[in-house]
Amino acid sequence: MARVLICGDLAWAHKECEDLFRGLADVVRMDSPNREEFFAGLQPGGKYDGIVGIYRHNISADYIGIFDEQLVAKLPQSVKWIAHNGAGYDQIDVHACKERGIIVSNTPGAVDDATATTALYLMISALRLFAHAEQDLRAGKWKSSHRSGAAHDVTGHTLAILGMGGIGFRLAELAHAFPMRIIYHNRRKVADAPEWCEYYGPDRLDEFLAEADVLSVHIPLRADTEGYVGETVIRKLKKGTVLVNTARGKVIDEAALIRALEDGHLGAVGLDVYPNEPEVNLRLLEFPNATLLPHMGTETCDSQKKMEIRALTNLRDYLTVGKGSDIIPEHVQ
Amino acid sequence: MARVLICGDLAWAHKECEDLFRGLADVVRMDSPNREEFFAGLQPGGKYDGIVGIYRHNISADYIGIFDEQLVAKLPQSVKWIAHNGAGYDQIDVHACKERGIIVSNTPGAVDDATATTALYLMISALRLFAHAEQDLRAGKWKSSHRSGAAHDVTGHTLAILGMGGIGFRLAELAHAFPMRIIYHNRRKVADAPEWCEYYGPDRLDEFLAEADVLSVHIPLRADTEGYVGETVIRKLKKGTVLVNTARGKVIDEAALIRALEDGHLGAVGLDVYPNEPEVNLRLLEFPNATLLPHMGTETCDSQKKMEIRALTNLRDYLTVGKGSDIIPEHVQ
Repeated sequence: MARVLICGDLAWAHKECEDLFRGLADVVRMDSPNREEFFAGLQPGGKYDGIVGIYRHNISADYIGIFDEQLVAKLPQSVKWIAHNGAGYDQIDVHACKERGIIVSNTPGAVDDATATTALYLMISALRLFAHAEQDLRAGKWKSSHRSGAAHDVTGHTLAILGMGGIGFRLAELAHAFPMRIIYHNRRKVADAPEWCEYYGPDRLDEFLAEADVLSVHIPLRADTEGYVGETVIRKLKKGTVLVNTARGKVIDEAALIRALEDGHLGAVGLDVYPNEPEVNLRLLEFPNATLLPHMGTETCDSQKKMEIRALTNLRDYLTVGKGSDIIPEHVQ
Repeated sequence: MARVLICGDLAWAHKECEDLFRGLADVVRMDSPNREEFFAGLQPGGKYDGIVGIYRHNISADYIGIFDEQLVAKLPQSVKWIAHNGAGYDQIDVHACKERGIIVSNTPGAVDDATATTALYLMISALRLFAHAEQDLRAGKWKSSHRSGAAHDVTGHTLAILGMGGIGFRLAELAHAFPMRIIYHNRRKVADAPEWCEYYGPDRLDEFLAEADVLSVHIPLRADTEGYVGETVIRKLKKGTVLVNTARGKVIDEAALIRALEDGHLGAVGLDVYPNEPEVNLRLLEFPNATLLPHMGTETCDSQKKMEIRALTNLRDYLTVGKGSDIIPEHVQ
């Protein structure tokens, strides 16, 4: 019988998970406390020997580290599929996987709603200065340090979406309800975007940035997107623009962001992600106009279940028909 | 020349305000530091003598107290109109005004959007436990005390709107975008509500409460609504229901709310208003599932300006045509 490795938490009970793979594969849980013991388990005769597929959740990095080149090299030749639970797969060296003949799937659509809702929350808080208002209340100061003049309505302002994938599009729908004016920048025009989503192509990036009241970042982290929202991009925004990031921390140059908060160029920021999670630059905590969440984008029981089912189903499909869905773009033939 | 009294802050410069009333009335600013000196100014020959109309903002209560029976009795007979800046006018004894022949106007529509956005924010935070997540982050704990199993998506849940006026209806529109299922309870069916807003009349209140995943309160504070959301109403909600209040603190029985947080009957609360503002019951601060804003409902420069213009216009219309708009229901002939 084939074996699949569950690498990270499951909301499902072990029994449910076994039921899902019954007749297809035995379910082995990764329970190594550290990277060394994990590697030992992967050796011939080790407790993870002979696994053909892996379900992976980022939480496993707390024990065995990320799936970097070193880890991928240690995987047995039998491994052919990694079903990652999450939209972002920057914790997996997908090029090393490709060279080893391992296909990686993710769970793109499943996180759109929860992540876009997080971006909406951060945008409202940043425009209205709500997070700081709550800090004031909890410090016994009611709203004494609040200045209405610095707070803005959502309605009628322009939301600029950088990267119109599933999450960006979902945010567009939610923000359009106010309404906000929705503009987006993408390498290519999104074919099925409604007419109220105005497209600004690569030749109109400067114009796109200049029209934003809120810039919400939805581009994946890759070598070519690291620090993409840096000094140049930020300074092309109007003074007072709100910056929201629910993608990955490293897509923004944090030093440039902090400078723009210091000199008042950015009106407020709403961040769910940071370059070195779970570390947070303590400087960020000093700005009253910063709303800061600890990567809560998909932290709901509803979305966790959706993502988990999706990732497990991809792994199951590989076992039954030789191929799962949601193959990452880098691995699509 | 008639005189109008500006009682409370204006975002407008004095000059702009004088321009608005030029040829109609002289503009006098209330600058008394306390109630006694204010009463002295209202005396014949005092600095507020002869005023025919008053623009009022709640901030004036910080200096001269609310417009209770005593204050209304001290107003000169010449006063015929009080243009209140705000939707809620519970700081004005409108019955005392009526007996004195003074008409009170408020600014109902102008606050709908900003207040509904606040309710949306509180609902998202309460369902997703975001406010507590930020407290964790700021305490250097990342999201260590977060349990995904206790957090819920907005999408697909049922929002029960108690009191379908302008603010309730605006919230319905914003929440419908997810979509949420929208149900509402009102004394009467709202004639122009869209079909996706399901009406639960007085005979179906229990059913309405039992179906709510989120109950958002939008009823005005009156003698007959004080404590309306009390033990009985709260216990008819399902266990785990989220309660949001952006109306007035006293519409909810706070002791009953706290009991329901203590024993876990309420899943979370999002509050913008409190029974004894600016005092906040310190017990509330202890619940990780409570998002607490210091009455920020309309605290934006955009909405403050809209409300101010609306209130001043009502006062101006009284001077030009003898009657302004937005007369409160108790004063409509």
